[in-house]
Amino acid sequence: MRELSVNHLLGIKYLNQKDIELIFETADHFKEVINRSIKKVPTLRDITIANIFFENSTRTKLSFELAEKRLSADVINFSASQSSVKKGETLIDTVNNILSMKVDMVVMRHPNPGAGIFLAKHVNASIINAGDGAHEHPTQALLDSYSIKEKLGTVAGKNVLIVGDILHSRVALSNIFALKLQGANVKVCGPKTLIPKHIESLGVSVETNLFNALQWCDVANMLRIQNERMEVSYFPSTREYTQQFGVNKAILDRLDKQIVIMHPGPINRGVEITSDVADSNQSIILEQVENGVAIRMAVIYLLASKIK
Amino acid sequence: MRELSVNHLLGIKYLNQKDIELIFETADHFKEVINRSIKKVPTLRDITIANIFFENSTRTKLSFELAEKRLSADVINFSASQSSVKKGETLIDTVNNILSMKVDMVVMRHPNPGAGIFLAKHVNASIINAGDGAHEHPTQALLDSYSIKEKLGTVAGKNVLIVGDILHSRVALSNIFALKLQGANVKVCGPKTLIPKHIESLGVSVETNLFNALQWCDVANMLRIQNERMEVSYFPSTREYTQQFGVNKAILDRLDKQIVIMHPGPINRGVEITSDVADSNQSIILEQVENGVAIRMAVIYLLASKIK
Amino acid sequence: MRELSVNHLLGIKYLNQKDIELIFETADHFKEVINRSIKKVPTLRDITIANIFFENSTRTKLSFELAEKRLSADVINFSASQSSVKKGETLIDTVNNILSMKVDMVVMRHPNPGAGIFLAKHVNASIINAGDGAHEHPTQALLDSYSIKEKLGTVAGKNVLIVGDILHSRVALSNIFALKLQGANVKVCGPKTLIPKHIESLGVSVETNLFNALQWCDVANMLRIQNERMEVSYFPSTREYTQQFGVNKAILDRLDKQIVIMHPGPINRGVEITSDVADSNQSIILEQVENGVAIRMAVIYLLASKIK
Repeated sequence: MRELSVNHLLGIKYLNQKDIELIFETADHFKEVINRSIKKVPTLRDITIANIFFENSTRTKLSFELAEKRLSADVINFSASQSSVKKGETLIDTVNNILSMKVDMVVMRHPNPGAGIFLAKHVNASIINAGDGAHEHPTQALLDSYSIKEKLGTVAGKNVLIVGDILHSRVALSNIFALKLQGANVKVCGPKTLIPKHIESLGVSVETNLFNALQWCDVANMLRIQNERMEVSYFPSTREYTQQFGVNKAILDRLDKQIVIMHPGPINRGVEITSDVADSNQSIILEQVENGVAIRMAVIYLLASKIK
Repeated sequence: MRELSVNHLLGIKYLNQKDIELIFETADHFKEVINRSIKKVPTLRDITIANIFFENSTRTKLSFELAEKRLSADVINFSASQSSVKKGETLIDTVNNILSMKVDMVVMRHPNPGAGIFLAKHVNASIINAGDGAHEHPTQALLDSYSIKEKLGTVAGKNVLIVGDILHSRVALSNIFALKLQGANVKVCGPKTLIPKHIESLGVSVETNLFNALQWCDVANMLRIQNERMEVSYFPSTREYTQQFGVNKAILDRLDKQIVIMHPGPINRGVEITSDVADSNQSIILEQVENGVAIRMAVIYLLASKIK
Repeated sequence: MRELSVNHLLGIKYLNQKDIELIFETADHFKEVINRSIKKVPTLRDITIANIFFENSTRTKLSFELAEKRLSADVINFSASQSSVKKGETLIDTVNNILSMKVDMVVMRHPNPGAGIFLAKHVNASIINAGDGAHEHPTQALLDSYSIKEKLGTVAGKNVLIVGDILHSRVALSNIFALKLQGANVKVCGPKTLIPKHIESLGVSVETNLFNALQWCDVANMLRIQNERMEVSYFPSTREYTQQFGVNKAILDRLDKQIVIMHPGPINRGVEITSDVADSNQSIILEQVENGVAIRMAVIYLLASKIK
């Protein structure tokens, strides 16, 4: 049987092309099952998964929970705000305690880059990184590429633009790794202060003029403006950002082709994207959300099959 | 097969008499099943329900959750406090995101009147209103009428009194609609400042003397005093309220008949109702809670059968 | 069939020796089942359990939840912070409301000593005390004794030391009852101000010198320093506590035997116990956590069999 080359999903960085193909094929299968209104498959009846979220998250947590429940896994939710983490316990102690209750898999979001990697070295369970600081958010990148493939037939050779705060975005970094691995051309666009200095070393080009960037691409992935992550003094005001980097219907109409619009959500309507764009038939934003469940089912299923 | 005339439960206002009969017959069935200690029926195995609560609620949320689990539905809980609503996302975006994960039904509590109605127009799922501001709380009214029917054999022709803050109460409004639809006579009693000006247009009479009102009725539904909803300056003090509108054993003993006492909970013992009344055999307060689960199972079941 | 002498687990005080034996044998069975990777037994499919936590708790709540889910019970979680308790509702009203929804068993943590005992007198459900103030935490004591028995073959005749804040510790009190009931010798060690005045009346001896106490024992159960429970003025500083009562590798090396180290968690590494001790092969801290799930499955199973 084909299987993943890894025992954890810590980042796209650690996957190879065959891993991504296998995840996509497995997601295809689960998506078809769900679309036949079979909401629950008895696949992982004897698996217990702990969702450990040290940062608030609605959509990612909900998506993982649904994926786990549709695989019939037992689900335990742990959020740091009510936890003994506050009482001075270390991360490893917290997680080891949870694992001692015979938990097989941990889905973890943590504010510190590398938290999942650290954990995977020290505990005996399969770890899925659901976002570690500004580092990686691998399932988001997988569902993004999967949605591009679904829309355009393939990822290889496509021109994919990522617009926004590239510097602080785990979504951007994971997407870059995933897209390059699959042979896409990647360009980033945003305020100079929000583009990492050596990003070209990842095989990515930079374009600070939004129109030129959009004209180049087949797909534009509009990142959310996360004011909470910004170093305020370096950043243009939200209004300035919108003027230079917000996508609206007018700019799309000036292009000589129709491009695909993506957004990882939640949307700031009128900031990085206007409503007429978000709700247009060029947008695959809700398809991304839908595919997120299938992708997470696939990842969990494939990692679980390496445990048993 | 008989079915509801509606695809959503947004308010009692939108139901007809046959709908209520069908809900009650279905609730009878589920109540009987639960009483035989069969806690779980496999009816809705392939349905996923999202409970979306933009206001805190314990008992309503718990009751819906139990109803959903006993129907074997998959349940996803979403509370606004941890959510991207705070990040500036719109209600429709939030709910559409959840629905993109293939959710079939939404149970929503929201502080704004009409939130459920708005949502039902814009998203593709069956919506159950679990309370929208001071507007409606239809499942509460259904369980209240169901409990009256269970106790007195019928609702038609009965004299039902609602005591308290009628102006701000979604429970009062939904009850008035439900009771009138079933042919009951409805009177409200409370401080003048807390009774809506044109309430007679709903076919409801007003009585500001509690003794006279109690003397008239077969059933008295004592609303909870919700200090948090009051415009403080208009309202009598809690002590004044209790003196004029609180029900105690002494006033009940002065009546020439035994009336049924109801309360939607949570009770302020000693404020709108004394303990000896709340715990007496005239009170059906705990029966209301019990019936709440059966009524909600019925509503969910009947709406789900219209989806498939 | 053998059964427990009680209908509730309110405290170890109310159990007899045969009860503890029965719980341990049942836990043996469940532990074996879990270790065969059969995560879920369909035993309690028709039982609904409410976890009612009036105090935050991560590990105890998680452990109970897992135990309940592995027995296939339906689980309802209720935490006081979001609840109508804040609206002035009484404890009995809150719980009676939950029970009216046909809940069979309540697992409750409450800040007030005796809350579970009070509840058991007034409501119609099986109550498990998951910690009531400084009074008892019976499942913790059961899992502690079970872990000692697993490690040393028996509890009877063993010398068990409890180190820390004995005065405010429900873990200490429940452990003392459980250990004495099984014929162990019990000594406590800690600052004089944190040892209850008449503790000898429970058949427990006191030793304020840590080295002497450790030299005496087969097992040392290191309590967590709970700064939040301390009356600050009476208490030595954390640094002073660690110097006098913290266990480190150096002091263990000076003993003429190898003792077993326990801790109820969460650990303050470097305060009551150093990392090299917590992570050593003398420590059975993670085994305690693992055994917690099996013990709780056993307690729930045995109490449920008295309901039906």
